[in-house]
Amino acid sequence: MEMFRKLITFDEAQQVIQRHFKPKPLGVEEIPLLEANDRVLAEDITATLDIPPFNRSTVDGYAVKAEDTFGAEENKPIKLKVCGTVNVGEPPKIKVTWGTAAEIVTGAPIPEGADVVLMVEHTVRKNDVVYVYNAVAKDENVMKAGADIQKGETVLKTGQQLYSREIGVLAALGLAKVRVYAVPRVAVFSTGAEIVEPGGKLPRGKIYDINAYSLSTAVLESGGKPLYLGVFPDDMAKLQETLKHALASADMVITSGGVSVGPKDVMPQTLNSLGKPGVIVCGIATKPGKPTTVALIDGKPVFSLPGHPTSALLIFHLLVRPIIQSMAGRKVENTLKVKVFTAMRMFPAKGRRTFIMVKLKRDKLNRLIAEPVPVGLSGAITTLAKADGFVEIAESQQFIDAEEEITVNLFRKV
Amino acid sequence: MEMFRKLITFDEAQQVIQRHFKPKPLGVEEIPLLEANDRVLAEDITATLDIPPFNRSTVDGYAVKAEDTFGAEENKPIKLKVCGTVNVGEPPKIKVTWGTAAEIVTGAPIPEGADVVLMVEHTVRKNDVVYVYNAVAKDENVMKAGADIQKGETVLKTGQQLYSREIGVLAALGLAKVRVYAVPRVAVFSTGAEIVEPGGKLPRGKIYDINAYSLSTAVLESGGKPLYLGVFPDDMAKLQETLKHALASADMVITSGGVSVGPKDVMPQTLNSLGKPGVIVCGIATKPGKPTTVALIDGKPVFSLPGHPTSALLIFHLLVRPIIQSMAGRKVENTLKVKVFTAMRMFPAKGRRTFIMVKLKRDKLNRLIAEPVPVGLSGAITTLAKADGFVEIAESQQFIDAEEEITVNLFRKV
Repeated sequence: MEMFRKLITFDEAQQVIQRHFKPKPLGVEEIPLLEANDRVLAEDITATLDIPPFNRSTVDGYAVKAEDTFGAEENKPIKLKVCGTVNVGEPPKIKVTWGTAAEIVTGAPIPEGADVVLMVEHTVRKNDVVYVYNAVAKDENVMKAGADIQKGETVLKTGQQLYSREIGVLAALGLAKVRVYAVPRVAVFSTGAEIVEPGGKLPRGKIYDINAYSLSTAVLESGGKPLYLGVFPDDMAKLQETLKHALASADMVITSGGVSVGPKDVMPQTLNSLGKPGVIVCGIATKPGKPTTVALIDGKPVFSLPGHPTSALLIFHLLVRPIIQSMAGRKVENTLKVKVFTAMRMFPAKGRRTFIMVKLKRDKLNRLIAEPVPVGLSGAITTLAKADGFVEIAESQQFIDAEEEITVNLFRKV
Repeated sequence: MEMFRKLITFDEAQQVIQRHFKPKPLGVEEIPLLEANDRVLAEDITATLDIPPFNRSTVDGYAVKAEDTFGAEENKPIKLKVCGTVNVGEPPKIKVTWGTAAEIVTGAPIPEGADVVLMVEHTVRKNDVVYVYNAVAKDENVMKAGADIQKGETVLKTGQQLYSREIGVLAALGLAKVRVYAVPRVAVFSTGAEIVEPGGKLPRGKIYDINAYSLSTAVLESGGKPLYLGVFPDDMAKLQETLKHALASADMVITSGGVSVGPKDVMPQTLNSLGKPGVIVCGIATKPGKPTTVALIDGKPVFSLPGHPTSALLIFHLLVRPIIQSMAGRKVENTLKVKVFTAMRMFPAKGRRTFIMVKLKRDKLNRLIAEPVPVGLSGAITTLAKADGFVEIAESQQFIDAEEEITVNLFRKV
């Protein structure tokens, strides 16, 4: 039980986790393109056709042979005989021979024999004769087959996140389905005899659960699929059963509560009873987040986060979110950072990596300043709601001075 | 048919739309809190209970009367008799009277009679007697009822978008359901005889649809629910039928194609046949986007966007997205903007508000520069995929010079 006493640094905790668990995409699934928004491509996309698939007219007018227009002038027009019409959406039924012109509309395929389209505005039509007043060069007003995308070209790569523009590109190639990475399933539950699920009446001495809700939503925001399991007492047999079920139905488990050093904290013992290697991190020298416990059971990570809602969500952001993103095949997004001034001096907890929740405000000079939001006794929920982000103070640092320029890691995207 | 000839400016088009249609949330629905991520709150949330609901101990130790510890010193401890235990999650079964102490754990309710908790580390226990070595002030290690949120306090307001932290706050208040604004339903279809849906074999002379896919996804990204209807020919009877169905099943309709000035462009006529006031904008002096048509039919807006995929998505961003956001009860988000240098001189189309698609690159000096991506003949899809954003050139402006500092509107969030 030696490991239960030792607090490792934040950096060491990250290294231990990385050594035991290399997060990678869990599988591939084929889904309808219309449902692929925000999913991650699991294949390189190579064009199997030219885009456009044929030479197209970009204007309304007449498809002709360019050489037939040579010598045409404003006062010496050349006459061409209209040999038929090419409609949009149909293969041309006619060929353009010397001295003839085919009526054509925007987007229609260029008929065989023609190599240019005269804009209707630049011609005059009389019965079945069209008058051409200026010479044109080959290919004018023609979008060539493959001009946009060439058959064989790789247009999107594995790992690309799909948004409206990428989905447009896939549609252009005729793909109604697409292969994307599976979404990691993350089981979430809270523990504690005093915790009850929201929705019912609150019995005396109890409080409503926060963490299973905020963490489930944070899983969703990170690209995972939360499996909300609810609230369970700190009872070893019940925890074993719940964890077994969670491990069987999900790719990762997140619990909160039950990991401080009180007599009822059975989580580490329970985790070690379920599989190898069991607990790999048991306590981290951070503030908040000290009781954070991490286990690996039969290849699946289990994060037991502190019961304090702000601490739980902070440690989620720091340690868990990047792993979910990697398992989802996403790029690990660094949090958005802003440079601001401190409103007051801030002290770290001695020997611990300290994260201070801050709210951003404007001072009298209209500068953005960071003001600490207390996490301590009160503020379990208000801290969570009020903080815009957090400031990190290294273990070795004495304090951050007032009016110092510092980096704030934002909780939310702009 | 006078209005079919007149091109109005971009600003006028915005004003006409605003005059005819004031976008606002469409309704309210109650949904489970676990499904409320990214939804918009449709009610002010007032706390119906104190958080925490009772005075709680923040440490493991002994609940006592503060006055009982007065005079305690390191070498002159005061003795208190342990009168029982208070468990977490249960109402206390005991009272603390003068000269007694109740064993208590973190999170448990403070029993009647006690007003302070002594940390277990600061005491010594011998059988049923606890030795106290220093005096403590009232309320130490006690989190008071309502310290976090007071009953009656308004904690979240109508219009607030819900993320993990807000959902945590709602859970804390015991709310398992929440009232949010309804998601606007937006019917999307493409028109054109040459367009076929992705997924099947491509007949000769046809191209795959892009717009219904990219626009459906853009609707989703804007907070709407797309209803994908597919592809229809430019046939008035068929368009009437499709538009009627779309208007009956959605709150807004977006079509693309069929709005340029070709002989087959029946969209404006069809729109005017369906209801009043019908077409309110028919062509805008922009490049691209000139054929953009906007109608209002029985109070529902219909946007007929250009067939060119990049133009369609650009006009969607400029005109349609803010309206969907407002109908969803969301804040209208300005596009993210970056200040960069131009890679080359850029010219507007004469007399038209011009939007030039640009790709951001780094130059030799490592400065971010904007390089135009051609939208014209080729590049229907590649432009869409390659552009990071667009530059706006006013109608009156002659050009943007090379090496000039300009603002780029980004298509995507960072």
